[in-house]
Amino acid sequence: MAEHNVTVESTLDALLSEKKYATIRDILSTMNPADIASVFDEMEEERLPLLFRLLPKELAAEAFVEMEPEAQELLIRGFSDSELREVLDELYVDDAVDIVEEMPANVVRRILSQADPQMRKEINEILRYPENSAGSIMTTEYVSLRPNMTVEESILRIRRTGVDKETIYTCYVTKNRTLIGLVTVKDLLLAQDDETTIEEIMETNVISVNTHTDQEEVARMFSKYDFLALPVVDAESRMVGIVTFDDAMDVMEDEVTEDMEIMGGMTPSDKTYLRSTVFDLFKHRIPWLMLLMVSATFTGLIISGFENALAAQVVLTAFIPMLMDTGGNSGSQSSVTIIRALSLGEVEFRDLPRVVWKEIRTAVMCGVTLAVACFVKIMLVDRLLLGNNEVTWLVAFVVCVTLALTVLVAKIIGCSLPLLAKKLGFDPAVMASPFITTIVDALSLLVYFGIASALLL
Amino acid sequence: MAEHNVTVESTLDALLSEKKYATIRDILSTMNPADIASVFDEMEEERLPLLFRLLPKELAAEAFVEMEPEAQELLIRGFSDSELREVLDELYVDDAVDIVEEMPANVVRRILSQADPQMRKEINEILRYPENSAGSIMTTEYVSLRPNMTVEESILRIRRTGVDKETIYTCYVTKNRTLIGLVTVKDLLLAQDDETTIEEIMETNVISVNTHTDQEEVARMFSKYDFLALPVVDAESRMVGIVTFDDAMDVMEDEVTEDMEIMGGMTPSDKTYLRSTVFDLFKHRIPWLMLLMVSATFTGLIISGFENALAAQVVLTAFIPMLMDTGGNSGSQSSVTIIRALSLGEVEFRDLPRVVWKEIRTAVMCGVTLAVACFVKIMLVDRLLLGNNEVTWLVAFVVCVTLALTVLVAKIIGCSLPLLAKKLGFDPAVMASPFITTIVDALSLLVYFGIASALLL
Repeated sequence: MAEHNVTVESTLDALLSEKKYATIRDILSTMNPADIASVFDEMEEERLPLLFRLLPKELAAEAFVEMEPEAQELLIRGFSDSELREVLDELYVDDAVDIVEEMPANVVRRILSQADPQMRKEINEILRYPENSAGSIMTTEYVSLRPNMTVEESILRIRRTGVDKETIYTCYVTKNRTLIGLVTVKDLLLAQDDETTIEEIMETNVISVNTHTDQEEVARMFSKYDFLALPVVDAESRMVGIVTFDDAMDVMEDEVTEDMEIMGGMTPSDKTYLRSTVFDLFKHRIPWLMLLMVSATFTGLIISGFENALAAQVVLTAFIPMLMDTGGNSGSQSSVTIIRALSLGEVEFRDLPRVVWKEIRTAVMCGVTLAVACFVKIMLVDRLLLGNNEVTWLVAFVVCVTLALTVLVAKIIGCSLPLLAKKLGFDPAVMASPFITTIVDALSLLVYFGIASALLL
Repeated sequence: MAEHNVTVESTLDALLSEKKYATIRDILSTMNPADIASVFDEMEEERLPLLFRLLPKELAAEAFVEMEPEAQELLIRGFSDSELREVLDELYVDDAVDIVEEMPANVVRRILSQADPQMRKEINEILRYPENSAGSIMTTEYVSLRPNMTVEESILRIRRTGVDKETIYTCYVTKNRTLIGLVTVKDLLLAQDDETTIEEIMETNVISVNTHTDQEEVARMFSKYDFLALPVVDAESRMVGIVTFDDAMDVMEDEVTEDMEIMGGMTPSDKTYLRSTVFDLFKHRIPWLMLLMVSATFTGLIISGFENALAAQVVLTAFIPMLMDTGGNSGSQSSVTIIRALSLGEVEFRDLPRVVWKEIRTAVMCGVTLAVACFVKIMLVDRLLLGNNEVTWLVAFVVCVTLALTVLVAKIIGCSLPLLAKKLGFDPAVMASPFITTIVDALSLLVYFGIASALLL
């Protein structure tokens, strides 16, 4: 895909230098808006305004929506007032809102002053909803029908007003602005009789969300019910807009990225990797690194506390990394599994006992298997093959018992912390490997030195 | 949501005992198929056949598709031949394929023997495509139009044949079975003149995928282009089916879950957490734990190699966990970021130099910040507050220099291994924290003891 763009870009670049504008226009006209946007994001800045003016009007607006904020801002700053008005006229309200949210204040003022009064009003309304709410990602342009319309009247209405709607395929039936049903274009087309009223064929059990519903919940409903669009109602059950499936897909993708970033021990970022500056990356990564480094003080203290034991049996030190890593890995297996199950809605807090019991049994199986394997490995490799006589069978025993117990502790902590976090209103993704590792490290060392002190000293 | 189901289930349970079948039917008729499926997945097994027979026919089939394989198998085993045929008649081909793929051989034979010959042929065709390919998730039921049809004829054709199609909103224009264009129902409805031919209004730059295209790539195209459906063509460019957005969303979700499982050091699983047995969990978790435990032998060997140094300066041991953890965290920050950027198509192998250079600069900023903080912490907490006189400023210096170098090494390895894995055709997600941690642990210990030997002994 990207290699394809490179070719198009160099071709366009060459054609621009040769002023072959008609050819450029022909090439761009064959392309999909998303691909045109990729070209714009990769081209040299000073080329953009000219290139944009070569695009057919509607395609220009569609591609504009898909561009990165940097390219959008550059283009807007170059637009004359009438050019800006033309682009705005072609935009859907929710796309206009997305753009407004990314622009600096002076650009926003210009956009709002050039938008037509109706759009300006709708943009302002959507902007009032909290970030990440259904209200903030909805569009106010949908097809509404009245219950007493016939199928024929409805189709006529769609034909008359549909061009400005983001989707015409799901139409909402309202009465005094209250949502009372929905009807699809498929229902309308397949209706046997054109005189049937909407009331007779509409689906009345309509699933809707509130303007304040979290966008993650909205995305989950899309993937559960396979909707094309989901109606959004206000506190008085009046219909105010719809969220379309493409926006839900974007939300799904963003939420997954956010989860992964948090699970990787970073604060989430809005920018793509290649567009983030080094300082952006630093800013998002240093807080967790710092916190976890400082909290590793405890593991250090535990080791210092058992310094005499370690001085007497230095061989014990060699197994610390293996115990810590296996504990960390066991814990993160459980936490990752539960974090994902939580975000898919497969488990919830009330499943805690069931989850813990399942993890305990899994941990026993994993722990015993690992302990046996580890014992064999220590006796064969460390003692026989490498001839390390300090590794007595008692040392191997201490290591292996610690290993099994560490796996058990790690899995219990790994599965319960995300559930507890969710219950307390935190993001469960925080309870992923970096955090779990730090806790499990300290606990596994305590177990290790505890058993070692009892048996070896 | 789940609590809501609990109520419905207990109500239905009570009504079943009282044999109030008409009431049950009324309740179920108001529900969405996905919600009915959730009820079936939670109800007692012996209740299911009766409950299913109470559902209106079409709703029954829609709910059936959404159920877990266990409930589906149970119901199929209880169906008479004619009941099975009725359900099959209501299914879309791709949903039938999904069900067939989950059932044991004898159930599959029964399904195929009851499906009508056309559906049997289509099921068998789809089953022949490799797992995770576009062919395996497509449906063969789409609306096809001919280029010389008028808008009016096309709408008539949709009205006549649309009821069996998974989507009617995007229609594909074919000539000798070759895909030459597409037209949406919106285009048809908004066309000014009913006598316009399809040829005149169709979009000819159609983006399609091959039957063998990986489903992850297919899902990525949906989120890039916001399609409702994507046509699938065979090696001879003949149109064979479509993938619809709901299946693409499922693929997106599954692929993310798979990525997270692999990143958490597990082999991916098809079952949800609560449906996995303890042995399933064990099976998916033990391979990585075992591998990583054995590979930790190297870290053990490094420590054994420097045993004399450690015996002389036991204080060094106390900082091993902090160095290992910070290294692991730094590495996994970079690897998670790059793995996600790879799966979103934001970076690719040719960006390697750019990525490494960005990570090096970020690592220097993070490393220096951490080293300074660590030095202050060691001198203030370990030396002054805890009065540990073994912690000299030279020890602190060794620890902090190691820390900075470990962060640098971890970030370079963390960002480059996923890119290399992708280039070599492995799943980049394998190169996440468990794997990175093991490598970084060994390297950080080598750096630590190397510097310590030079400066302290």
